Amino acid sequence: MKRSDTIVAVATPQGVGGIAVVRLSGPDALALATSHLNLRPPTSDLRPRQAVYCRFDDLDDGIAVYYPQGYTGEPTVEFSCHGSLYVQQALLQTLVDDGARLAEAGEFTRRAFLNGRLDLSQAEAVADLIDAVTPIQHRLAVSQLRGGYADELRALRQQLLDLTSLLELELDFSQEDVEFADRSQLTQLVDTIGRRVDTLRNSFSWGNALKRGVPLAIIGRPNAGKSSLLNALLHDDRAIVSPVPGTTRDTIEEAFVIDGTPFRIIDTAGLRQSDDPVETMGIQRTLDAVKRADYILYVHDATQSAHAITDDLEQLKRLTPLDKKHLLVVFNKVDLLPDAPPSALRSYPVSAKNGTGLDQLAQALAQAVKADRAAAPEVLLTNARHLDALAHVGQALAQVSLGLSDGIPSDLVAVDLRDALHHLGTITGEVTDDEVLGNIFSRFCVGK
Amino acid sequence: MKRSDTIVAVATPQGVGGIAVVRLSGPDALALATSHLNLRPPTSDLRPRQAVYCRFDDLDDGIAVYYPQGYTGEPTVEFSCHGSLYVQQALLQTLVDDGARLAEAGEFTRRAFLNGRLDLSQAEAVADLIDAVTPIQHRLAVSQLRGGYADELRALRQQLLDLTSLLELELDFSQEDVEFADRSQLTQLVDTIGRRVDTLRNSFSWGNALKRGVPLAIIGRPNAGKSSLLNALLHDDRAIVSPVPGTTRDTIEEAFVIDGTPFRIIDTAGLRQSDDPVETMGIQRTLDAVKRADYILYVHDATQSAHAITDDLEQLKRLTPLDKKHLLVVFNKVDLLPDAPPSALRSYPVSAKNGTGLDQLAQALAQAVKADRAAAPEVLLTNARHLDALAHVGQALAQVSLGLSDGIPSDLVAVDLRDALHHLGTITGEVTDDEVLGNIFSRFCVGK
Repeated sequence: MKRSDTIVAVATPQGVGGIAVVRLSGPDALALATSHLNLRPPTSDLRPRQAVYCRFDDLDDGIAVYYPQGYTGEPTVEFSCHGSLYVQQALLQTLVDDGARLAEAGEFTRRAFLNGRLDLSQAEAVADLIDAVTPIQHRLAVSQLRGGYADELRALRQQLLDLTSLLELELDFSQEDVEFADRSQLTQLVDTIGRRVDTLRNSFSWGNALKRGVPLAIIGRPNAGKSSLLNALLHDDRAIVSPVPGTTRDTIEEAFVIDGTPFRIIDTAGLRQSDDPVETMGIQRTLDAVKRADYILYVHDATQSAHAITDDLEQLKRLTPLDKKHLLVVFNKVDLLPDAPPSALRSYPVSAKNGTGLDQLAQALAQAVKADRAAAPEVLLTNARHLDALAHVGQALAQVSLGLSDGIPSDLVAVDLRDALHHLGTITGEVTDDEVLGNIFSRFCVGK
Repeated sequence: MKRSDTIVAVATPQGVGGIAVVRLSGPDALALATSHLNLRPPTSDLRPRQAVYCRFDDLDDGIAVYYPQGYTGEPTVEFSCHGSLYVQQALLQTLVDDGARLAEAGEFTRRAFLNGRLDLSQAEAVADLIDAVTPIQHRLAVSQLRGGYADELRALRQQLLDLTSLLELELDFSQEDVEFADRSQLTQLVDTIGRRVDTLRNSFSWGNALKRGVPLAIIGRPNAGKSSLLNALLHDDRAIVSPVPGTTRDTIEEAFVIDGTPFRIIDTAGLRQSDDPVETMGIQRTLDAVKRADYILYVHDATQSAHAITDDLEQLKRLTPLDKKHLLVVFNKVDLLPDAPPSALRSYPVSAKNGTGLDQLAQALAQAVKADRAAAPEVLLTNARHLDALAHVGQALAQVSLGLSDGIPSDLVAVDLRDALHHLGTITGEVTDDEVLGNIFSRFCVGK
């Protein structure tokens, strides 16, 4: 129903500026535009993709361009007007009075998806691209938009379809009790696909870290200077501070960028050595931070005994596995020492107060991420909805594998296989429902 | 110097949105764009005014349009990209790295002016148009942009030039002691022009009121309910509240709009009847508000004696002329009265508390403005810089008139006449200096 009407919105950012662009899309776009745009010279007409100078009623002069198949895949007219609030409002009002409907958030992209111009994962990448603040966020979104990721999914889907065909061929001839495919070969194929799905799922921790910021915990005993170090990292010139959307879209977490790699501060938690049950609260908070972080800065007051480091880290290891975490030990307050402390692997002497060593620490962090990232797969999963769908795909495939090895009839195995295909299809949008689409496109701004 | 380089800016409002437009203008615009835009299909080229799909390096896909003579009158390329902060920044950075310069505020319009695409008063109208929030502000700006105002100034200039020619003809033949023009006729002509200048200057109070909001003072004794009335007017549905730029650009004055007419609250000043010198401070504040306002709401507590009204207004009249002001008497708190008070000309029974009579009061205000406006000239002066220039024109013309009637030699009279032409020329920009241009264009946003 909604596809058949004509929608309108301001496509440019909200507010006042030099120019704004009003976008009309739908079957009546050309007619609606033509009835208000007085072209200059009057003998000209809106030819496809031709920028024409014109006057919109008595409201404003500007440039109009007509696309027989625009971004949405529908007839589209874009009118560039002066970026005044009044002009933008008045243009929208005029077109709405004439029968256009104000577009909902993401509705242009939704139409592009429904008209087959983008798959669903690409449509989601458009929103990510628009939200991108750091180079890495941008690169992840562009890669998803341009299809490296879609190619990966398409290959997976093709393998699943091939498998289904084999099984169904077997079903067609089941009366004759012929088994076309060697079941152990089928199981192998399923397992190969399953590993591919697992690789994609595992890439989420990286994809998400790079998209939302690599989670970094700053821990240490009280007064070791955790907050000063955090402030020094946040406010130092070499670390460009920029807002990064938190895991919920309403929060902005403290974040900084080193050499293009975004970091997100998970917590600045104090560690206490104590048997007092109240004090274990502090340990709990640290444990939570450590669990959620990929990288940990342990801050030590360099004027205190280094035994504390060993004690703390031993205790921490007993409480939570640390082997998959990157731990960097920071000797803070070196400005108070007569001599520089001996440098050691992954230990960094700094002074949050006067800035000594901060450069080296920042570079070490960035280098650690770069090294780890080099080992990560090319295509990274960045979308929690896709992770969820792939989990379902993985479960269904496990069932398929089990069914095959347990000698379960092909028609029952095929049910699980179709389930895997279904969930894979929700990622790219071969399978959709209105609620899912609603959730996805409500993330967008109006006008895209 | 500056005209010969190529400038770049984001032309759309600051922030994140569906799309943003990056504008390149100058001799290298086409070459710079071509070196980054990979057109699709690759065989296509940037033909004038043709919207082409393209990829900007690896950064973003979008639409580019090339104008051999764009808004600035120079070669211009406009690229519509995704409206992400990262993309916008990265595009600018790439083009700056390649030799373009970030445009200053208003620099595109400045070039349009320098290249003769707009006169200076039209360039200023572009800034007014972009700032427009109310329909009247928009209409004033459009009228100035489209030239009704420029026509008026051109006619004035032509008359001054004709006058100068007559005088100079006389000068050429001065050796022969011939007086070509009848001096009393010349004086008459000068006075006609002078009156025209005066009419324009007088229209400023209207033009400025409509542009910035009609100045309205709410006065009355303490506890008459001035603030409640103000709040009721500001927050009532029928009065659409919208921010209107104050006389200084950094302040937002309290403003509301009735039927498209913007009002600006000058003050809500308390009147006190007192001989106490300290209390006269209150009167001074009221006097200031009354002097600056065109319309005055005198608020009376309807439960109190109506004698107060006469007393207050008599006292006010002794202190400041009221005859050119519109005074509306408001009987507030009618909800506390057993019967409605007798209605009289320009007196309005209201209850700010429960909303009674507010509609009628608002309509009366709007009607009063409309009636007054009908008597105002068609072309309204809205720009303080122009008012200042016209004051100089008026002074020079007065000198010319005096010189002619006093029989001062033509060559001396011609000096004053050229002075008048000079100041008139500063309005449309025939005469400019860098400082004036700097002031004018610094008002603009970057990208226009």
